[in-house]
Amino acid sequence: MNGELGKAYLKDYIVKKQPLLEKYITSKLPEARQISPLNEEILNRFLEMAKLGKGIRGSLIVLGYKLSGGKDLDLILDTSIFVELFHTAVLIHDDFMDEDDTRRGLPTMHKQFEEYGKKLAKVEPTHYGDSMSVGIGDMGLFMAFEKLATANFPREILLKAAHIYNQVIIRVAYGQVMDITNENIQQKSEADILNVLRYKTSEYTGSMPLLVGATLAGETNAAKLEAMHKYGDSFGWAFQIQDDTLGLYSKEEELGKPIGSDLREGKNTLFMLHLSKHGTAEQKEFQNRIMGNKHITELDVTKMQQILKDSGSYDHVIDLGWKYVEEGKKYIPQITKDKEQQDILESLLVYMMERTK
Amino acid sequence: MNGELGKAYLKDYIVKKQPLLEKYITSKLPEARQISPLNEEILNRFLEMAKLGKGIRGSLIVLGYKLSGGKDLDLILDTSIFVELFHTAVLIHDDFMDEDDTRRGLPTMHKQFEEYGKKLAKVEPTHYGDSMSVGIGDMGLFMAFEKLATANFPREILLKAAHIYNQVIIRVAYGQVMDITNENIQQKSEADILNVLRYKTSEYTGSMPLLVGATLAGETNAAKLEAMHKYGDSFGWAFQIQDDTLGLYSKEEELGKPIGSDLREGKNTLFMLHLSKHGTAEQKEFQNRIMGNKHITELDVTKMQQILKDSGSYDHVIDLGWKYVEEGKKYIPQITKDKEQQDILESLLVYMMERTK
Repeated sequence: MNGELGKAYLKDYIVKKQPLLEKYITSKLPEARQISPLNEEILNRFLEMAKLGKGIRGSLIVLGYKLSGGKDLDLILDTSIFVELFHTAVLIHDDFMDEDDTRRGLPTMHKQFEEYGKKLAKVEPTHYGDSMSVGIGDMGLFMAFEKLATANFPREILLKAAHIYNQVIIRVAYGQVMDITNENIQQKSEADILNVLRYKTSEYTGSMPLLVGATLAGETNAAKLEAMHKYGDSFGWAFQIQDDTLGLYSKEEELGKPIGSDLREGKNTLFMLHLSKHGTAEQKEFQNRIMGNKHITELDVTKMQQILKDSGSYDHVIDLGWKYVEEGKKYIPQITKDKEQQDILESLLVYMMERTK
Repeated sequence: MNGELGKAYLKDYIVKKQPLLEKYITSKLPEARQISPLNEEILNRFLEMAKLGKGIRGSLIVLGYKLSGGKDLDLILDTSIFVELFHTAVLIHDDFMDEDDTRRGLPTMHKQFEEYGKKLAKVEPTHYGDSMSVGIGDMGLFMAFEKLATANFPREILLKAAHIYNQVIIRVAYGQVMDITNENIQQKSEADILNVLRYKTSEYTGSMPLLVGATLAGETNAAKLEAMHKYGDSFGWAFQIQDDTLGLYSKEEELGKPIGSDLREGKNTLFMLHLSKHGTAEQKEFQNRIMGNKHITELDVTKMQQILKDSGSYDHVIDLGWKYVEEGKKYIPQITKDKEQQDILESLLVYMMERTK
């Protein structure tokens, strides 16, 4: 099975989430506007960014809910946007940390407000943009909590779902700080790198939304929850491996964010780890010169793309991504016996590696 | 009545909160350590910073709970630290935004990790420190939510308290972005500046914790809640006015944070507003040169202190702070008839303006 069905499932979710995101942010506008026009401005820009999301996490909340027999689709759809708010907020912080200029085809939030700051009297535009991205990200995080905590589910169930979410996002922060710390790659193992990916992204992309959705449907079957957890872990890793791959091998026009950013930031990706263990002396010398170098050129990125293919690193990492797809598939029969739902789960998983943006 | 009783009330709370903060962070250590030693490091540094807090917000949660007849003091004390976690996290983000070097007598978090980054292979220390402060702040925000959402109160009541908290902290983010935007002070009124102070600090320092505490005790008396709200608003403004005053007129050794930071950051404080309206041409010329100037000297700060006294700005702002104390006092009889509790409310309010750190 290919990823077409999964792609269509996501597309359908995106169409449904847009008016719900708009409705939520619009409900905030009157108060924000009354406090200051600046707040209306940041809400509009946050909404614009949020609407361009791929909807992976929100769609998994809806899927988890359906898989556990949840029936109120309007309620779960409306609730699911909390994770899209969270995800957008985290990306706003990440983009500042990673010094990226574009996201989802737009200037990143800190770049948008660097421009905005140029018109202000007493601010230094770069630091102003950076600071605004922290404040706007915080706002998005707070709104995500509000959206979840006001959802009309039985109180006990809602707090159970919030607990799963809270545990996972604390680990997202752990992953974030590990991701930017770039300890010496020579001393790292593949397990170390996968550990960072798990906490930084995979867990909140795959298993968390599925489990939150299932919990909101009142799921208590431990074996089924465990299978969702395992499927979700594989899903998250496949997602992140393809994310790192696209971040090196796609085009900025297609991806909506810069190519080679991980190299510039000196990130310890699976590609870099494999190269550091298996590259020739010459390749490793180039790697060492490029990693963490703020001034790398397009030519350097092209050269790195070729080196990773020559060293077998590219194939190794792609293979690992597909291994996670295969691993994840194994848990599908334990999640549902419904053929249609099984197909969606399988195709979504495959799509994580097939996607081109 | 002076602020001695209020000061003692806070001191008592500080003694009680320390082991609870330690217990909470310690409960996080095994998982964090297992994920990476770096996470143990950030938890320890976050705890060190959190323990040095003045405890104003946490103590108001306990007070609000008691004022509404709450009986489980162990539970409310343990729960109250969620707001201390939140406050510490917000300060970590603020200190990056305001480019401050010290906080609570320690290097600020971004400065601590700038040092840490100097030992790392592939990072630029300044940006690394800034990024770490964003990640560590996020972690603190997430922990605050977790701490509140797992408190053992009736579910409905807990979600009601969380709702008050969520509404207010969204407005904190609005206040934050307004605070750093520094629009042209000539076009501002005192009401504009007070509006920023309300959302940035006052509301979450005064009325929010009181109302959260009262709500957790099951308070439903609308008139009493309204009186707490009004008292809390005045409390918050008095707090912030004294904060701005100490930030200009204290000593760094006493205050634990830099003096004159608002000048360097070009903040539109009440002092700056008054001076811009009532200063002589020469004073205003100096003001315009100093505000937002990253390279101001100690001598510039000393000169500004004198100018503000000469122009009457100092007296005007201090008077306004005391007006809020008087305003807040009016609501005390509507909050409680208990003389002992009335005294605590009054003395705490007075202490907000009497405090020297």
